[in-house]
Amino acid sequence: MTVAPLTPDERAALLPALAGWEPAAGRDAIAKRFVFADFIAAFGFMARVALAAEKADHHPEWSNIYNVVDVVLTTHDAGGISHRDVAMARTLDLLAATG
Amino acid sequence: MTVAPLTPDERAALLPALAGWEPAAGRDAIAKRFVFADFIAAFGFMARVALAAEKADHHPEWSNIYNVVDVVLTTHDAGGISHRDVAMARTLDLLAATG
Repeated sequence: MTVAPLTPDERAALLPALAGWEPAAGRDAIAKRFVFADFIAAFGFMARVALAAEKADHHPEWSNIYNVVDVVLTTHDAGGISHRDVAMARTLDLLAATG
Repeated sequence: MTVAPLTPDERAALLPALAGWEPAAGRDAIAKRFVFADFIAAFGFMARVALAAEKADHHPEWSNIYNVVDVVLTTHDAGGISHRDVAMARTLDLLAATG
């Protein structure tokens, strides 16, 4: 399924509203660091995200060191940031806040 | 709890036996890439590793992109590779093989 990248107007309207998400270095992607109390909390977040990502068929690029989870979102089929990344960013923020 | 780094003799005896594990670039650590059929298989592996890591109180540094999991093991308390990393590497290999 082809996904359209965000238009310039959409980027200007949508991306600044994603709190804590920043442009990823050298790529058309958004990135955010999530910090938790410990590994159990961090991996609990990752498990919830994994289920949501599989359901949406849209998977993060992510890394974890103990209580820190770094996430990068982009849409390979779109060649950059799409609505799917905006939706997934909102999902991750919700899951991080409701752990 | 302080953990001793491997002695040179221990390194020579133990590390070559860890199939597929290589020195991590620029660090005293070991690294391996695990490749699975899809995200479900990759994250299933990560979930099993997470439980083992928490039980052992020894956590990997790792990243995941869809079906690929890159793992780095080192022991911060030892300032490098210790027996705990050798044991965890074996656990990861076992968990990857028995998914």
